[in-house]
Amino acid sequence: MIDFNALFKISYGMYIVCSGDNKSGNGFVSNTVFQVTSEPAKFASCCNKNNFTAGIIEKYGCFSVSVLPQKTDAEMFGRFGYKSGRDFDKLEGMNVKYGKTGVPIVMKECIAYLECKVVQKFDVGTHWIFIGELVDAEILDGSSEPMTYSYYHQVKKGAAPKNAPTYLDKSKLDISKAPVESALYKCSACGHIYDEKKEGVKFSDLPDDWKCPVCGVDKEDFIKI
Amino acid sequence: MIDFNALFKISYGMYIVCSGDNKSGNGFVSNTVFQVTSEPAKFASCCNKNNFTAGIIEKYGCFSVSVLPQKTDAEMFGRFGYKSGRDFDKLEGMNVKYGKTGVPIVMKECIAYLECKVVQKFDVGTHWIFIGELVDAEILDGSSEPMTYSYYHQVKKGAAPKNAPTYLDKSKLDISKAPVESALYKCSACGHIYDEKKEGVKFSDLPDDWKCPVCGVDKEDFIKI
Repeated sequence: MIDFNALFKISYGMYIVCSGDNKSGNGFVSNTVFQVTSEPAKFASCCNKNNFTAGIIEKYGCFSVSVLPQKTDAEMFGRFGYKSGRDFDKLEGMNVKYGKTGVPIVMKECIAYLECKVVQKFDVGTHWIFIGELVDAEILDGSSEPMTYSYYHQVKKGAAPKNAPTYLDKSKLDISKAPVESALYKCSACGHIYDEKKEGVKFSDLPDDWKCPVCGVDKEDFIKI
Repeated sequence: MIDFNALFKISYGMYIVCSGDNKSGNGFVSNTVFQVTSEPAKFASCCNKNNFTAGIIEKYGCFSVSVLPQKTDAEMFGRFGYKSGRDFDKLEGMNVKYGKTGVPIVMKECIAYLECKVVQKFDVGTHWIFIGELVDAEILDGSSEPMTYSYYHQVKKGAAPKNAPTYLDKSKLDISKAPVESALYKCSACGHIYDEKKEGVKFSDLPDDWKCPVCGVDKEDFIKI
């Protein structure tokens, strides 16, 4: 039997990947950005076909990668990781610069960025792998450690959203599913704990439009722990 | 101007990727293994076309990924990272098991492994991206931290070999290149320092077949520091 816990031993960084231009841009939280060749320097970015940003990368032929530090504010994951750019402008009011290709680059929290021009696109089923040739790169904060997916998972208690390549259906994990009297629910985005005992209201009785009081993600993004 | 130092902010793990069977197998050190889809679970492995293992993956249609821990012995990088399986049998005397597909899986130092059946192959120039569907996964040591490329680079003082997707020509980095009277040379594999002053022999005067006394890699894999 496949032990899906082993998948957590694969290491990734945490990034905001953006595309578009100064009129129409969008971005999403990604952990699957990696270099694929050295000469010339080319990078792969893996993106769910349903992601709003996927269509924008296809249209504009470029993407930026903002490297997030360990200290990244939970609000960034709420905004870029658990909400769709179809519903609101994720870049509104955000500190953004525009690269050589015109692509928006999120500068808030960013410790380094890459800018790539798309040269290939591969179909791997539910996701595209976009291959981009590096056209620009800069370090903005050389002293902060990049956030890794492991850090996000273990320290920040974050989980991958459903569209992520590394999304894991919890039923695949061998964990105890014993019923409890009063339960705790954890926000997948920021790690905030909803304690039924403390709040005096069962989580299931909260209204459907209830949001995480810390980062604002939807009720459905909480996981029973 | 592109600041190539920014590329070190992209996070990776460190793995031994193997292919073949119990008669003919080989493996190499890789930092570019990552999940690309969740349903079904598929993984990408990026491999230089000149790597001996690349042809073996093509022939056998499978690969294994052994996750290395932070405490990985330098000898493993010397054996799997800086030498070619064309010259000797890397798996000889190694603790190996054979997976469901028959693929060799390096168990020495391994804290978890994945086994994949190749379903796609993409050409990205100097490298192939092999896409493999997960057929098995196991955790062997849940308490050890996986080694990251950043840890290998910063703590172990290791560098990527020339065939790696993340190989970086040092001349691209903005570092001082002032001449020195007596120089230090660092082993890219294990971090061993050759000190000309202490040894009394200039590094350039060492014979061409000189090897790192610690991990055994070739003279050409030392970098002047």
